[in-house]
Order: sequence, then C-alpha cells, then structure tokens
Amino acid sequence: MLEIKIEKTTNPKPIPDKDNPLVFGTIFTDHMFEMDYTDGKGWHDPRIVPYHNLELEPSAMVFHYGQEMFEGLKAYKTEDGRILLFRPDKNIERANHSNRRLMIPEIPEDIFMEAIKQVVKIDEAWIPTKEGTSLYIRPFVIATDPFLGVRPSYTYKFMIILSPVGAYYPEGLDPVKIWIEDEYVRAVRGGIGEAKTGGNYVASMASQMKAHEEGYSQVLWLDGVERKYIEEVGAMNIFFKINGTVVTPMLNGSILSGVTRRTCIELCKSWGVPVEERKVSVDELEEAARTGALEEVWGSGTAAVISPVGHLRYEDDVFQIGDGGIGELSQKLYDTVTGIQLGKIEDKFGWTVEV
Amino acid sequence: MLEIKIEKTTNPKPIPDKDNPLVFGTIFTDHMFEMDYTDGKGWHDPRIVPYHNLELEPSAMVFHYGQEMFEGLKAYKTEDGRILLFRPDKNIERANHSNRRLMIPEIPEDIFMEAIKQVVKIDEAWIPTKEGTSLYIRPFVIATDPFLGVRPSYTYKFMIILSPVGAYYPEGLDPVKIWIEDEYVRAVRGGIGEAKTGGNYVASMASQMKAHEEGYSQVLWLDGVERKYIEEVGAMNIFFKINGTVVTPMLNGSILSGVTRRTCIELCKSWGVPVEERKVSVDELEEAARTGALEEVWGSGTAAVISPVGHLRYEDDVFQIGDGGIGELSQKLYDTVTGIQLGKIEDKFGWTVEV
Ligand SMILES: Cc1ncc(COP(=O)(O)O)c(C=O)c1O
Ligand SMILES: Cc1ncc(COP(=O)(O)O)c(C=O)c1O
Repeated sequence: MLEIKIEKTTNPKPIPDKDNPLVFGTIFTDHMFEMDYTDGKGWHDPRIVPYHNLELEPSAMVFHYGQEMFEGLKAYKTEDGRILLFRPDKNIERANHSNRRLMIPEIPEDIFMEAIKQVVKIDEAWIPTKEGTSLYIRPFVIATDPFLGVRPSYTYKFMIILSPVGAYYPEGLDPVKIWIEDEYVRAVRGGIGEAKTGGNYVASMASQMKAHEEGYSQVLWLDGVERKYIEEVGAMNIFFKINGTVVTPMLNGSILSGVTRRTCIELCKSWGVPVEERKVSVDELEEAARTGALEEVWGSGTAAVISPVGHLRYEDDVFQIGDGGIGELSQKLYDTVTGIQLGKIEDKFGWTVEV
Repeated sequence: MLEIKIEKTTNPKPIPDKDNPLVFGTIFTDHMFEMDYTDGKGWHDPRIVPYHNLELEPSAMVFHYGQEMFEGLKAYKTEDGRILLFRPDKNIERANHSNRRLMIPEIPEDIFMEAIKQVVKIDEAWIPTKEGTSLYIRPFVIATDPFLGVRPSYTYKFMIILSPVGAYYPEGLDPVKIWIEDEYVRAVRGGIGEAKTGGNYVASMASQMKAHEEGYSQVLWLDGVERKYIEEVGAMNIFFKINGTVVTPMLNGSILSGVTRRTCIELCKSWGVPVEERKVSVDELEEAARTGALEEVWGSGTAAVISPVGHLRYEDDVFQIGDGGIGELSQKLYDTVTGIQLGKIEDKFGWTVEV
C-alpha cells in the first residue's frame, strides 16, 4: 500500500462549541485527505494536508460533464473515548460500484480505508460528543482534465473532507411528511440512479422545492418507466411495515443501495421480523393505508439514520401512517443502530470499525 | 444593463498556428468572462479578465450535487474579416431553459449576449481561419456554495471560455458509424435530459466506451421507458430521410433541443422538403433500411454541424444507409449551414449576429 504523507496545519481553526447545535454540512475541520490519479500512473501521492481551496482550470471536466462521485459516512465518539466508524467497508464498496458506472478509476480499498481512519484520527478533537452529533465524512472524486469534449477524464482528484454535524433533521426523531412525486423523475433503470453522483441530486431539486412549498420535507420518487412503483427518498431508502411484514423496494439499478437500508434489513431479520425486498406500488400503499394494514413507514440513511414518516401525499390524497407518530419498529431500529454506532449496545454483527 | 468591466491580460499566450489542425477543446484563449450570483443580490460584477484558474472550496456544491449548466456555440471569421455568431439567441434561451430545470437562477439575456460579443471581440485574434475551424464558445454556470446537503445553491459563478477548434471529427465530412444502445439509458422524460448539464454526459460515457471498442464513433440513445424510440446521439440530434420525407424525433423532454436541429428543420421546410417531428422506432428504421426507403441519416450539432451516418448497428444487426456514403441532402445542409456561418451564402433567415 502507498504511504500516506502527512502535513499538519500550522494554523488550526477554533473548534465549534460542542454544546451548540451544529448546522449540517457547513463547517469543515483542519485537515483533508487528497490523492491524485493520472492515466498510466494510477492513483498516487496520498496525503493528509491542511484543509484548503482547490485550484482548477475553468475547463476542468467536472464542471462540464458531471464526472463526480461521492460517499457519506460518519465517525462517532463513544462515552469511553473511542472513535467508531459504522460499516465503512460498505461505503468503500459502493464508491467503487459508482466509479465503475461513471468510468472513474476504482480506488484501492486498503488505501481508502486507511485514508478515512488517518484523517479522522488527526482531526479527532473535532468529533462532537453531544447526543445526535457526529463527524460526517465525505469522500469524493472529481474529474480534472482541462478538456472540453465528452469522454472519461484522464486525471482525477480523490478527497476526503470532514464536517462536525448535528442532527440532520433539526426536529430530531419527529415524523416527517413525504411528497410522492408524479411529475419529475430522478433516475431510470439503465441510467446512473444507483451511482452516488451529482447528476441524480440536481435532478431532484426542482421537485424538492415544490414539495417544500407544499409543506413536505422530503420527496419520494416513483420509477421512471411506469411511474407506479416506489423507489426511494431524496437521500434515504424507504421502508413500509404492512401487516407485520417489512417491505422495501428491491435494488433495481435506479436506487441507491443504502448502508442503512442493508442494516435495517439485517436487524429485522435477526429479530424474526419478515422482510421482503420487492416492487411496491403506490396503489398497494394507498390500499394498505386505507385498510389500516400500513403500520409504519420510515426512511433510512446515514444522515438521519431512521426517519419515521407520519404522512404521505400522492396527488390529492394525503394519508396518515398509523396515528401519525413514531412506530414501534422505527424506534427500535433507531435505538439499536445509534446504540451500536455509539458503542452503547454490543456489536454482534461486527459492523463498527475502531479508528 | 450592468456594465462589463474589462481587465486585459499583461501576459498574452502565443496564438496557435492557424494552419495547424487544432485538437478540439484543449487550448483556451487569453481572456474569459465571469459573473457572480449571490442570493438576494442577483447576478453581479460582470467582467472580462485574463483566463485564470478557479479557486473553490472542496465543499463547493458543484463537486457534489451536479448543479452545473453549459452551452456551446461558435464564432466564425469571414473572408472579409467580420466575426459572425450563429443563432446565439437560441443558445441563450436554451441556457435559461436548462437553468430553470436545474434550479439555477436565470441569466439576463441582454448581458449574456453582450458578454459573448465582448469576450469574443477581445480575443478576436484567436479565431482561426482555416477551412472547418472556428472559435468554440463555452458559457457555463457552476454552484459555488461551500455546503454539503441537497438544495439549490445560494451562490453561482457564470463564465464564458473560448477555445479555437478544428473540425470536431478529424475525418471531416466522412460518414460515421453509429451504435444504437440497448442496455444503458441516457435520460428519461421527467428527468434532466433536455437540460444541458453534466449529469447527462457522464451517464453516456460507459456506453460510448463500449461503442468505441466495437469500432463505432457515436452512440444513438433509445427512450428510457420503452427502449424502442430513437432519441439522439451523444452530442447531436438525429435525422432520417425516409422515402423523401425528413423525420426527426420530436422534443419530448428527454432530448436536447439542438440549435442545429432547428436549423435543419427550417432549411428543409424552406426547400419544400417535408419534415416530420415525431416518434421514430428502431423497428421502423430497420424496416426502412431493409426496403431501401431509408435514404439518408445524419446527426446535427454545433461541433460537427452535419455528420452523415453511413452505418447503424442495433444489437447484432448492422445496416448500411444508402451506399454508405454522404447523402445529397446531408451535403446540401452542411454546405448551406457552414456557408451561412462563414458569411459566404446570403443569410435570408437573419441567423447570424455580427460581433
Ligand atoms: C439517494 C439516496 N438514497 C439513499 C441513501 C441512504 O444511503 P445510506 O444509508 O448509505 O446513507 C442516500 C444517502 O445517503 C442517498 O443519497
Ligand atoms: C446531447 C446533445 N444533443 C444535441 C446536441 C446538438 O445541439 P446543438 O445543435 O445546439 O449544438 C448537443 C450539443 O451540442 C448535445 O450535447
């Protein structure tokens, strides 16, 4: 494995007050990881350096042709002072899955993991400790060739930046209202939906703004072909508890394979709760809501962990889930996942990785 | 209208030899246009400055959420020394159409037009004059907020850079071989296909590489829903002459509304050639190729202007168009469009704009 060179900052920034609520994604730590790719040479010069601005030519391909990949995971500080990562191997695997679809060269897994650990360790003092807070880790790759023309870039930059974050949803574990989108489409099978890349997110913004204006905090996407089957939320996968069975849309190429999704499925199965990964239509949901069979709905994602859903709106129909509050299974999943992440509950699955 | 400030370079670069073939998109001129957007303040500080690197935070939204828009048009030097732009108003309109879909604030049309003219004028000496060459103009917008989280950015940068270019297809007006893609999908109705934005191009790269390996220079996309109807080529719209009628896929939300497409339609109509904008299925094409009704196929785009297609491949079937050479109408369109662009043919339509 390549050795990671380290250059420490000589000008550390003040660390934000740990008791202050932190706004998601606005503050960055003192250091970042960087590694370059050059065609013919591969990935080279892994280094941890002071957090700094990037200098790129205006013709850098990332600005024009969208060749960019990102990941998102978190580091947690346990009560006894250890630093835990949650299933970072899954993020690394997914990053390379995205890279393949986007024609970005794969990143060696060993150096990727080591880079995460070392950069988190160096900025350890930035990991907040207040309930619900964590250090958000953002690995990402951009295409840097100064070239106008559509082809994969010959050069790339891989970086990891860190941001201390509070709860993603300022309301905390409060049920959210979700808007089922019937006009815009986020992704379609055969496209780039299952890659974690900018194009999928910009595609979602118009709908998100519309939903916000209507008082809904998130958008639930339908498939791009039949506009009938549930896909996922803007930055979460989605789960339904119907008549005692947990149902979630199957991975079909157009939705992201969420690490939290996988975790929910594995936990439910370990508890003896039946889980089905399959197609779920809006019709099925409306029917289940009407008959009372729709017991719980929640979103799963790194940022929010578990986000109970209180209401769904599809066209002019609004349906409440259960009593509109937090479901029992949603709460249990939230408590278990965050408990394991914070080292408060025994990690029987070997999901956490100590830094 | 805001006044454009001008700062000229004190360190001009050598201008490439006008008789040397220029590789597309690799050389940039001495100046660029820049304008910033700030929420609450709007677009401000339009300026022409020496071509320079951009400095951005690693958290700048463009690197993560794909909020980027671009355009492409050309300036030509006529034999009598005038500088002509070709239908720049259409590019400006389309830019704002893209901006709306991408939740990027619209750019005032008057300043956009003035910016193109002034920056081209300043770097006038860079416009190559050899047959087939021109000055490629690349306006683009990127989201610059240093923020991790999915929402439209509050700040943007709009730039125009210029690149002297040779013929896009080094072979010149030589028929190309095109691969009809049946696995990957570029865009789907309801998505961002009709916006000129990075996400659509990165989505196309995997297929393009596959086609190249098979000896095909371009990919022809099918619709994302039924995978049956023709959409467009990677960076061109597509036309078929079937039994004397010109047929091109209708604008359906998932293909780009090409300026050259519009020009082809208007020219054909002015010549009394019937034109149909409608759905075109692969089956119809295969049938037309088999019976000899498929007389010509060509792509239309700013880079290549008109690109005759000699062969199409769909799955295991390869079909030759006519005698595999350059069709009569393709040649006439090429000669007419380039003639008007270079001021050699009278511009009856008022398409050219003198700088
Ligand atoms: C589109 C999308 N779906 C689902 C998820 C959930 O994935 P994970 O649980 O790995 O965070 C995310 C992101 O984090 C996402 O961006
Ligand atoms: C996807 C796509 N389709 C079509 C075109 C042709 O458009 P225009 O004729 O305006 O250049 C382009 C680009 O230039 C393009 O990128």
